[in-house]
Amino acid sequence: MPPAVKALFFDVFGTLVDWRTSIARETEEILKGRGYALDWSNFADAWRDKYQPAMEEVRSGHAAYCKLDVLHRQNLESILPDFKISGLREEELRELNLAWHRLDAWPDVTGGLARLKRGYLLAPLSNGNISIMVDLARRNGFPWDAILGAELARDYKPNAGVYLAAADAFDLAPRECMMVAAHSSDLKAAAKLGFATAHIARPNESGPGLGEVSPTVPVDVAANDLGDLASQLGT
Amino acid sequence: MPPAVKALFFDVFGTLVDWRTSIARETEEILKGRGYALDWSNFADAWRDKYQPAMEEVRSGHAAYCKLDVLHRQNLESILPDFKISGLREEELRELNLAWHRLDAWPDVTGGLARLKRGYLLAPLSNGNISIMVDLARRNGFPWDAILGAELARDYKPNAGVYLAAADAFDLAPRECMMVAAHSSDLKAAAKLGFATAHIARPNESGPGLGEVSPTVPVDVAANDLGDLASQLGT
Repeated sequence: MPPAVKALFFDVFGTLVDWRTSIARETEEILKGRGYALDWSNFADAWRDKYQPAMEEVRSGHAAYCKLDVLHRQNLESILPDFKISGLREEELRELNLAWHRLDAWPDVTGGLARLKRGYLLAPLSNGNISIMVDLARRNGFPWDAILGAELARDYKPNAGVYLAAADAFDLAPRECMMVAAHSSDLKAAAKLGFATAHIARPNESGPGLGEVSPTVPVDVAANDLGDLASQLGT
Repeated sequence: MPPAVKALFFDVFGTLVDWRTSIARETEEILKGRGYALDWSNFADAWRDKYQPAMEEVRSGHAAYCKLDVLHRQNLESILPDFKISGLREEELRELNLAWHRLDAWPDVTGGLARLKRGYLLAPLSNGNISIMVDLARRNGFPWDAILGAELARDYKPNAGVYLAAADAFDLAPRECMMVAAHSSDLKAAAKLGFATAHIARPNESGPGLGEVSPTVPVDVAANDLGDLASQLGT
């Protein structure tokens, strides 16, 4: 563990919250009443599949930055026909889109963050906008020092500016920052900038057996969950 | 009280923290050991007097946005000759400047914010940069949902963009936001944009008898302190 680290920055979707189960549950609750019977996990996967391509428009400079809520809404509307869903009212579409504000944390996260807070500054470094992060924190008891990430940088990970804006907000050099994520691609981008890195195993993130059990890139710490990370960091 | 309000945004210097007593104490602690015997409150006042003119350079467009820490450092160096202070090492100058990260809250604030958090989203809407806000929150136990304000907007209050960026970060319309401050000028600027407003009396902010006892502009709520505000808002 690099002794210089003063702040831990967290990926959120997949690393801290179980987006797949939560989105399946939330969409079922809203659409079941309208008579739709779908494979709701499949619906969640389809929605999530549009996530990277939508952000790529912004990362590549083809589109101006807009909040992830806006991209989620575009992505939602683009998959509805595939599931033969039509005629939803604006209010229902908005409520569906806010499902991303009602995701549940993996069971180890809230306790793990409380331990980590004793030794480090903590912030999400997510592609989610500030209001998503605030609602997830209220729902799950995440004890953030600040909400950093895409909206502050007005760009999306893994573009370098998102990581560097977070370090700068805390007046820290990259080597004083540790990126914590369940995705090796996120850690690879952070490490390239000089961040320390910690990998969290989420073996079932995208469905049973569909998640990273271990990192595919060199990391400073590989942990089974946030409690394990806290133990390895001595907090 | 406007029933639409969902978030409370706080001015920090003067409204939540007693900058004058704290800066006097912190600067005395650092400079006494170097043999300086000053009127430390006078030193705090001189430093604070440079605050508005420095921000005005940014507000007027004559200078690009830089963090308040940077302006505080320039202001510090500009007043040192007036107090016949010279020859400080870089490390000492940095430590002096970080005095603004070690300000104490007025006695009603931490308990008041805990009550207000039950009913509202809470964020600082300060000209201080994120790292100052984070350090003040850790020191005083401020339970922020997010750190908003000047650094997010890259401009300084009372310019409109700073207030509007905070409302936008929470996905709220101005009328769903309440600005809470001990300074009528801050509330006037917020009200012009459609924010609800609450005035907090800080009669001794800038010295005995030198602070606003009551607002000089129309406000939605006038409170003696944050406990009184929480009671008036029913939290």
